[in-house]
Amino acid sequence: MATITPSLRTRRTPFSEGVEKAGVTSYTVYNHTLLASQVGNYVEDYHHLKRNVQIWDVACEKQVRIRGFDAERLMRLLSPRNLDKMQDDQCFYIPMIDRNGGIVNDPVVIKIGISEYWISIADSDYLLYALGVADALNFDVIIDEPDISPLAIQGPKSEDLMVKVFGTEIRDIRFFRYKKLNFAGREMLVARSGYSKQGGFEIYVDGFDYGMPLWDTLLAAGEEFNIKVGCPNLIERIEGGLLSYGNDITREHTPFEAGLAKFVNSKEDFLGKAKLKQRPFNRIIRAIQIDGEIPPCERHWPVFLKGKRVGNVTSAIFSPDFGCNAAIGMIDVEKAPPGTKIEVETQIGLRDARVRSKFWL
Amino acid sequence: MATITPSLRTRRTPFSEGVEKAGVTSYTVYNHTLLASQVGNYVEDYHHLKRNVQIWDVACEKQVRIRGFDAERLMRLLSPRNLDKMQDDQCFYIPMIDRNGGIVNDPVVIKIGISEYWISIADSDYLLYALGVADALNFDVIIDEPDISPLAIQGPKSEDLMVKVFGTEIRDIRFFRYKKLNFAGREMLVARSGYSKQGGFEIYVDGFDYGMPLWDTLLAAGEEFNIKVGCPNLIERIEGGLLSYGNDITREHTPFEAGLAKFVNSKEDFLGKAKLKQRPFNRIIRAIQIDGEIPPCERHWPVFLKGKRVGNVTSAIFSPDFGCNAAIGMIDVEKAPPGTKIEVETQIGLRDARVRSKFWL
Repeated sequence: MATITPSLRTRRTPFSEGVEKAGVTSYTVYNHTLLASQVGNYVEDYHHLKRNVQIWDVACEKQVRIRGFDAERLMRLLSPRNLDKMQDDQCFYIPMIDRNGGIVNDPVVIKIGISEYWISIADSDYLLYALGVADALNFDVIIDEPDISPLAIQGPKSEDLMVKVFGTEIRDIRFFRYKKLNFAGREMLVARSGYSKQGGFEIYVDGFDYGMPLWDTLLAAGEEFNIKVGCPNLIERIEGGLLSYGNDITREHTPFEAGLAKFVNSKEDFLGKAKLKQRPFNRIIRAIQIDGEIPPCERHWPVFLKGKRVGNVTSAIFSPDFGCNAAIGMIDVEKAPPGTKIEVETQIGLRDARVRSKFWL
Repeated sequence: MATITPSLRTRRTPFSEGVEKAGVTSYTVYNHTLLASQVGNYVEDYHHLKRNVQIWDVACEKQVRIRGFDAERLMRLLSPRNLDKMQDDQCFYIPMIDRNGGIVNDPVVIKIGISEYWISIADSDYLLYALGVADALNFDVIIDEPDISPLAIQGPKSEDLMVKVFGTEIRDIRFFRYKKLNFAGREMLVARSGYSKQGGFEIYVDGFDYGMPLWDTLLAAGEEFNIKVGCPNLIERIEGGLLSYGNDITREHTPFEAGLAKFVNSKEDFLGKAKLKQRPFNRIIRAIQIDGEIPPCERHWPVFLKGKRVGNVTSAIFSPDFGCNAAIGMIDVEKAPPGTKIEVETQIGLRDARVRSKFWL
């Protein structure tokens, strides 16, 4: 296996030192930034995540910060999701689209106030899309990427750990809400959110130099909870049906195809509104259970129904807890509804499979 | 050293199979795509590149294709470089900017015709910027990323090899011009260009499935020229002063600061024109020669003049041919002109250095 090349262009994070100390064995690059994808054994990590608490360097979830007089106007032009009821302490998952209705990122948007939003992005330079729109219309906004690095605390013991470090206010943070809390004299945004279904928090670490002190503090405080340095876990993510932009969904797909129709409810004349209504809707993201032995899913796996192509699998792995191969794919809506028996072509052969009605978690 | 994680999100290329067969030992990710950064020993590769011919998988230079009635109008709005005299067989290096004058990519733009341009991009999703502008203004264009993968043939023996595979028309291709030539019944654009100063060509391989057949054909035909599978060479790039977007230049910098003033000559009212005139111009990209032993340049190295900070070094490596450490940095224009003795702070200590008037190649 080839190593990853150290480079300024694939940026280190405030927590890279900690991740390396913990013995990261495999990296990917996400938003031009290093993201650990293996620290030790990911099957052990998977079991650990479901029982304990983990600390993840997710600084690669870069913030696209939009500030200024036209911030709200720009957000309403960009978002297919209705922002009317979004509170000043709220986070919204939003499939952001282009004028053609194609998904260009699926971030968590954080409302700081009427004149400031942070967009915590998946792996595409969404900053450039928002900037292109704002530049073309000469909107009065500043769009930048501040020195803010998300750090995730995930797993069932997250809350107890976070209380130890940030105080009991942690317990009052509702799901996809945030509070501004203090660490080492610095106010930081702490949200109840994260890329797992095990519960937890994301700390928007404000300032590179606060990174390792906070990391070390959390690790020390977490000893009694059996804390471990981890990273987004492929098995748990697939069990939970958490989509990965660039894997499961791309600009080729609409939010409807991504199974995210409920997030398309804005009454504004947002970019892509007209086109979304016209585009055909023939395929959708599904949970798929695959029989037999499967290799790592490093390529699109074609899906067949009685010999005819009906879609692709884009993420797949063996789930120890459910004792089967769990997968995510985009499949013909009408031809292969839940319950349909299908065949999946992996690089080591055809496998029997079945379309499920929902994900495992 | 951590390995790179296989993932659909960090895409394989039509030539990945060939790169792996040649024994790639280190990968980076560039435009969400694998890019080999070491195939064997890069010092040997460096000497080989200057004397022979190499084949490079640069499919990561993704094409942003802009087609349609408003293609020309959009390009003139985006480009700070005067396009008036750009011919239909011509390639232009252009520092693309935003409304603030900051560089958002430094691609080679290829003119196919008045209604079609290809933008062969550096490492940022420039597609999203162009798309944001076009979407906001409702321009009549289609912007997409076609299944076209650049393959580079670089080194002094490039022309002889290319003639063997594509015919004598190759000799008539001038620098930064292209011809449409045939391979296996498929017409492909072949330009005299590439990310080295050793001469060579880039083939815009039209169709994933043509990748390995062309790769194998070139490798076989290149045997008599001592061909080797290589990749963009860090030493040669720095000697030649070829900038790396994300390393040496970012959105923080204007084309003036990047030393690219000659490419800002459009008479159109392009985005960023007004702001470019107002922004201060205090620092500029320089060639820097560093004394003593230096580590890999994985972080910004602060540059000092008599104890005062005057800039950063962003790329540096020992040059065997010039017997010194060659570096690229952005340095105060007035305080540290060429000839100035400076100090560079590496992660293993301060080094004496000197600002040069030009690069080595």
